[in-house]
Amino acid sequence: MRTDVTHFRCEIRDGIAFVALDRPDRKNPLTFDSYAELRDWFRDLVYADDVNAVVFGSNGGNFSSGGDVHEIIGPLTKMTMKELLAFTRMTGDLVKAIVNCGKPVIAAIDGVCVGAGAIIAMASDLRIATPDTKCAFLFTRVGLAGCDMGACAILPRIIGQGRAAELLYTGRSMLADEGAAWGFYNSVVPADDLDAAAETLARRISDGPNFGHMMTKTMLVQEWSMSIEQAIEAEAQAQALCMQTADFERAFRAFVAKEKPMFEGN
Amino acid sequence: MRTDVTHFRCEIRDGIAFVALDRPDRKNPLTFDSYAELRDWFRDLVYADDVNAVVFGSNGGNFSSGGDVHEIIGPLTKMTMKELLAFTRMTGDLVKAIVNCGKPVIAAIDGVCVGAGAIIAMASDLRIATPDTKCAFLFTRVGLAGCDMGACAILPRIIGQGRAAELLYTGRSMLADEGAAWGFYNSVVPADDLDAAAETLARRISDGPNFGHMMTKTMLVQEWSMSIEQAIEAEAQAQALCMQTADFERAFRAFVAKEKPMFEGN
Amino acid sequence: MRTDVTHFRCEIRDGIAFVALDRPDRKNPLTFDSYAELRDWFRDLVYADDVNAVVFGSNGGNFSSGGDVHEIIGPLTKMTMKELLAFTRMTGDLVKAIVNCGKPVIAAIDGVCVGAGAIIAMASDLRIATPDTKCAFLFTRVGLAGCDMGACAILPRIIGQGRAAELLYTGRSMLADEGAAWGFYNSVVPADDLDAAAETLARRISDGPNFGHMMTKTMLVQEWSMSIEQAIEAEAQAQALCMQTADFERAFRAFVAKEKPMFEGN
Repeated sequence: MRTDVTHFRCEIRDGIAFVALDRPDRKNPLTFDSYAELRDWFRDLVYADDVNAVVFGSNGGNFSSGGDVHEIIGPLTKMTMKELLAFTRMTGDLVKAIVNCGKPVIAAIDGVCVGAGAIIAMASDLRIATPDTKCAFLFTRVGLAGCDMGACAILPRIIGQGRAAELLYTGRSMLADEGAAWGFYNSVVPADDLDAAAETLARRISDGPNFGHMMTKTMLVQEWSMSIEQAIEAEAQAQALCMQTADFERAFRAFVAKEKPMFEGN
Repeated sequence: MRTDVTHFRCEIRDGIAFVALDRPDRKNPLTFDSYAELRDWFRDLVYADDVNAVVFGSNGGNFSSGGDVHEIIGPLTKMTMKELLAFTRMTGDLVKAIVNCGKPVIAAIDGVCVGAGAIIAMASDLRIATPDTKCAFLFTRVGLAGCDMGACAILPRIIGQGRAAELLYTGRSMLADEGAAWGFYNSVVPADDLDAAAETLARRISDGPNFGHMMTKTMLVQEWSMSIEQAIEAEAQAQALCMQTADFERAFRAFVAKEKPMFEGN
Repeated sequence: MRTDVTHFRCEIRDGIAFVALDRPDRKNPLTFDSYAELRDWFRDLVYADDVNAVVFGSNGGNFSSGGDVHEIIGPLTKMTMKELLAFTRMTGDLVKAIVNCGKPVIAAIDGVCVGAGAIIAMASDLRIATPDTKCAFLFTRVGLAGCDMGACAILPRIIGQGRAAELLYTGRSMLADEGAAWGFYNSVVPADDLDAAAETLARRISDGPNFGHMMTKTMLVQEWSMSIEQAIEAEAQAQALCMQTADFERAFRAFVAKEKPMFEGN
């Protein structure tokens, strides 16, 4: 997987890609360029065999301040409808790319995590925060609706319909304690431990079985609006596929030999 | 918006409609008349420009005791199937009218909140309760099923499938603490503070952006059974609409001027 | 309802069926035979008038260790795709049979509850656990995906998308406290009280109205992927049916007579 990106930080170590926005002096706003480059990078990730998990991290104590007011909101106020729809579709395409990239994404969130930043956290599979994290879906604060990049569909499934409605109408910050109690954060750790905790979790996942993880991620999205019966049939097919991977046999052999299985992702 | 209603209380102050059932001596039961009038009132609300949010309040220390046993349940036991279906559709139409009225609805719940009363609370966008609130979906207690007015679809999305199943099978009361922990209530406040807390929250929402809030409410319902991809495309269109409102530009100008934005709902 | 089963325990007392896996020395693994027999038994339950609720219990301090490694996983590693799909469909059919059996199912869970055992717990309507219960969706630990028997669709609706993703990717144990806080368990009781607590809850449900309970269970599944409007119309029809049962009239008469209603399930 390429790491030669311009508008965000990207590094790959032992099967884990570490990415982060990279304007820490301004709390890591998104720009037209970083939106597009992130979208393309996550789209390419589908085909990358050298990345098994992604850590989307913070930088300089903050995750992201969302769409830059001067570089994004200002220009948007002058656009035609056609241009506006092209923009909102591009931002939505970033969420589609994250949820369809085939690799579990762990958001490691410190400090400010608002607007499109909160959306990236929401679109990730797992979320670790620090006690000081403030996450706000503050679209109404800039005169818009809470329905941005899939928030009215995805956020209620994570924290429940009533809590999601409150955050989306008021734009208020969800505190770290709330986020943990509501299931938005999988854990809250001290800021000094954030990177290590995210890497440990990513490593646990990256140890495999990675074909299985890809199918888990695929089906979590695929079954979103299926009936229970459709979902069960879809999983019967998906799991039968996984049973023909060598990793399944590796696990059985390791069990018989009372060893820890070593997965190879095929 | 008209406030000349007969079967419930209704008042509009500064863009907020305050409604409540009005038979406090009997804990505010619903009747055929109040069902129908509430349904029609919420349907008309879609077209009202002078109401931005609704507080559905309690009265005399109780929210609602649900369908009146003598005035509703008794007659129902004597009806034909055609008449019964006309009744259950009318009650369902009230829920449809609430979720489609285009204005955030805040239920301010004290005391008894049961049966159809619990459904009205559930159909609201946000819920504030008092420590003494007892909310019960007690349809099984009158020999019926838990599937009343959308409860089997909506309640699980608010509090989770397992908790909803328990409440719907047993008809037991959900206590205030449970409701807060489970995400049914957005907050629990002392009874003396209930009206003020609901009005404060309604005011915060009513301050706008109200075109945005209408779209948020619309999409929370619209995306209910969409796939993630469909929901993201739907939000790209909805948010592009919002970006052509003057409120979006007002917010940008206020930000640049370091002022608080004043929204006008267009 | 027949109780002459070979591969699990089954007893019926006063309208409640008590079932449990029955190899306590090995923590009650599932085998090809017990999968098939459970599937057939739950399918037959639809037509049984002498069972109103099911307690799926533990045995010897454990609920189930899931698919037996030697008797299931070993053979699977040697099967053709056609045979594998027949197996995954059979396991999925057990979940379909549980959710469509028309009687509320209460899982009484002690000790180990993993793999297919965790799935049976998840597919139940209500769950009671003990403080020592460890529930793990550990399919990834045997080289497979988390998408097994409907888990990617059902688990997120019970505990939320983020928590479900963590359990399904990592295969880690959900502790009893977590399960209670997340809504997986309806209650946690001491091990010595587990059977009594499950029976008390089953008795409360079995006291009826059982036609109503059957419709509640039906609609909880039926409305899974409907729009809100479709769900409300579906419930208008379902509840109108229930209003023509004699149990509805019995409840009304009992109310008027200030007595406790005695339901008869019709």
